Amino acid sequence: MSANDTSADFNDFPAHVWPRHTRREEDGVITIAGVPLPEVAEEFSTPVMVFDEDEFRLRCREMAAAFGGPDRVHYAAKAFLSKAVASFVDEEGLNLDVASINELKIALAAHFPAARISAHGNNKGADFLRLCVAEGVGRVIIDSAADIELLDYIAAKAGRRQDVLIRVTPGVDAHTHEFIATSHEDQKFGVSLATGEAFAAVQACLNAENISLQGLHCHVGSQVFDADGFTLAAERVLELYSRINRELGVSLGELDLGGGYGIPYTAPERALDVAAVAKQLLAAVARTAEELGIQPPKVLVEPGRAIVGPAAVTVYEVGTIKDVHTGKSDVPVRRYVSVDGGMSDNIRPALYDADYDLRVVGRYTEGELVDARVVGSHCESGDILVDELSLPNDVAPGDLVALAATGAYCYSMSSRYNAFVRPAVVAVRAGVVKPMLRRETIDDLLSLEVSFLENSTD
Amino acid sequence: MSANDTSADFNDFPAHVWPRHTRREEDGVITIAGVPLPEVAEEFSTPVMVFDEDEFRLRCREMAAAFGGPDRVHYAAKAFLSKAVASFVDEEGLNLDVASINELKIALAAHFPAARISAHGNNKGADFLRLCVAEGVGRVIIDSAADIELLDYIAAKAGRRQDVLIRVTPGVDAHTHEFIATSHEDQKFGVSLATGEAFAAVQACLNAENISLQGLHCHVGSQVFDADGFTLAAERVLELYSRINRELGVSLGELDLGGGYGIPYTAPERALDVAAVAKQLLAAVARTAEELGIQPPKVLVEPGRAIVGPAAVTVYEVGTIKDVHTGKSDVPVRRYVSVDGGMSDNIRPALYDADYDLRVVGRYTEGELVDARVVGSHCESGDILVDELSLPNDVAPGDLVALAATGAYCYSMSSRYNAFVRPAVVAVRAGVVKPMLRRETIDDLLSLEVSFLENSTD
Repeated sequence: MSANDTSADFNDFPAHVWPRHTRREEDGVITIAGVPLPEVAEEFSTPVMVFDEDEFRLRCREMAAAFGGPDRVHYAAKAFLSKAVASFVDEEGLNLDVASINELKIALAAHFPAARISAHGNNKGADFLRLCVAEGVGRVIIDSAADIELLDYIAAKAGRRQDVLIRVTPGVDAHTHEFIATSHEDQKFGVSLATGEAFAAVQACLNAENISLQGLHCHVGSQVFDADGFTLAAERVLELYSRINRELGVSLGELDLGGGYGIPYTAPERALDVAAVAKQLLAAVARTAEELGIQPPKVLVEPGRAIVGPAAVTVYEVGTIKDVHTGKSDVPVRRYVSVDGGMSDNIRPALYDADYDLRVVGRYTEGELVDARVVGSHCESGDILVDELSLPNDVAPGDLVALAATGAYCYSMSSRYNAFVRPAVVAVRAGVVKPMLRRETIDDLLSLEVSFLENSTD
Repeated sequence: MSANDTSADFNDFPAHVWPRHTRREEDGVITIAGVPLPEVAEEFSTPVMVFDEDEFRLRCREMAAAFGGPDRVHYAAKAFLSKAVASFVDEEGLNLDVASINELKIALAAHFPAARISAHGNNKGADFLRLCVAEGVGRVIIDSAADIELLDYIAAKAGRRQDVLIRVTPGVDAHTHEFIATSHEDQKFGVSLATGEAFAAVQACLNAENISLQGLHCHVGSQVFDADGFTLAAERVLELYSRINRELGVSLGELDLGGGYGIPYTAPERALDVAAVAKQLLAAVARTAEELGIQPPKVLVEPGRAIVGPAAVTVYEVGTIKDVHTGKSDVPVRRYVSVDGGMSDNIRPALYDADYDLRVVGRYTEGELVDARVVGSHCESGDILVDELSLPNDVAPGDLVALAATGAYCYSMSSRYNAFVRPAVVAVRAGVVKPMLRRETIDDLLSLEVSFLENSTD
């Protein structure tokens, strides 16, 4: 984009990236669900995360419709969990995936029915498994041979029989737009299809008195936009269903194909056509099952990002602005625009080179576009929120800006680097603002301090 | 390393990487300052950070001795700050650098004398600057033209005159072993030497009624092991001192050369010879000042990592162990060893490809070495703590292991990903254990929840 472009277009946000109830009002202010973002910033301070409750709920429903009902969809709590989020998921009838004992405790604190919870983890530990069994969690996802032995023991002691799925590694990596098919996966999750470990785990589960095997699970990647990787994984896993049927006389009823459904973060990225992907995937499962002569299992999916990612935006206030001579021919001068958050509330650009769409949300902008970089306030040069963008040259200190699609893996991975506090998260719906998570305070930070001298034991 | 090596050597930890009061006792247990790590793990649960207080204090003293006195050394709080740490720094007579209003508040809560605090930040904001002025912070590090105007205004309103340094960008990047010299730096901090902005900022500070300019500041990088980058930066900045002297008749008394002093994370890496680097650097400053005919300024430095990094280790308990067939010729089978922490307590491997030295700390190991990877318990395949290492094949669930040199940027960047809680941090000294920061609990997490329905305003 040349520096002579005007910023007329900059006032238009990409609707497929922002929450669907976002509007630029006539006075230039951006509202979500009828709530002006500057009012939220004023009330809850900045940074603040604004959560479009109906976007979240509609995405739950769209996933449910695409995959054949809300009971087919597990919301992956790791993307973002709070008690309010758990309640939304419950009200929409979806199931919930947790990946730690504390995610389970938060869900239970929100009265999420345990029977609709699945528990994941490569290293669950006895405490987590004990709580799963005691609370009657619907499914434990077995991730290793060790899981089977420990869970069987714990279930026996509790006098229960625990339903499980086994996570297998089908040798499909779909983290990128092109998926990679191998026989092996060099990562920590699951048991291998290719080595026969998956079949051995199935046998071990079937032999375990206090475990009831319901099906298999696999996960192919993240930010996936088509069905190909899922389909290949499903085909490979279904061959194991066929073998289990043939050799062990057991028909498994469920096939969990994991998460990974992509979302667009920036204007040029396309939105996922979830209905089309689901249709293709379900058809492939049915066809493969027919070819193999087995009963088609019920297909389950575990979207996290695809439900919550586009539902939230993070609002910041602009602070210091600085034009930096870079010595580079492509961008000789870069305008550094600082905002009052950064890598503490959004580690994804630093961790994954993630990109975001940023807009000024408090007014129309008019200036010419200049090469810019939006940075946080942390004491680290890698503290970048948007690495390269064209920004109107009238953006000024005190302006409110927002990053879209920050619902997934921003709050959940947030830190207190430089003793920053976590932002508030507020839901907006039909013109009403409801706080979900309060802003942290310095007292939250100091509450962890142990008075050193008083507790001294010398 | 071949799989036929025995693990005899694995019991020997690299002494230059571990806290200096670490010992492998006759029973195979590792102690720090006489405290057995398994006892700490038992009392405070795992993960737990164990902080060798005397290592920290000795490193403070070594830095002070190298650079000419404790008043020359500012400990960079961003690496790791708690009230206890601030007290140690205070007792050792060092100064303290803070990079946010909350780092300042923590220091003040520990009764650290404000006059020995310096305040950094690319986007300080009015609240931070107001607190600096009100508390009488020793130095504010000016980072932009905007800082000067705002600080002058705030100081005027408070009826105070604020001492400052100006951070300049000398065009030296020493983040790697070879430093890069350019004229410009494409990053968010400081004002440019090359464009004349630095000189303009000096004039602006000298003209500001409520600001008293004490010197200039620059920062060349991190993990630096020799004096070359610092020396070049100092030479460039001293030319500006000379110009200021010549054209404005002002002799600046301080030159802050920032931090960045490196530490070894793994056995093959060498330790920094801080005395030698300091000697070379101070000599270069004296020589350059003499050549330029100016009074040599007092040299200040801001180590964070080099003081606190080697002072702490993180102790984990081993959980699930899994041999994974990778399909790769160099490492056909990789043993995945899970521990009960991960990217929540140490994001550095995921964020910076950082490497660490890991040892079994509860006993002697005897098995043959196998290719291994140590991973955390988070629901993410990138949740890796040590990407590649050779581990004795008798390492088993329940074993305690520790990563050395986790004192810097681990706790301070820690998150609650997957609703994990922050570990406890305990100081050990002369056989005594003193908790510094308590372990978080699920109640800490839930304390941020706003009861959604009750607070609803519909």
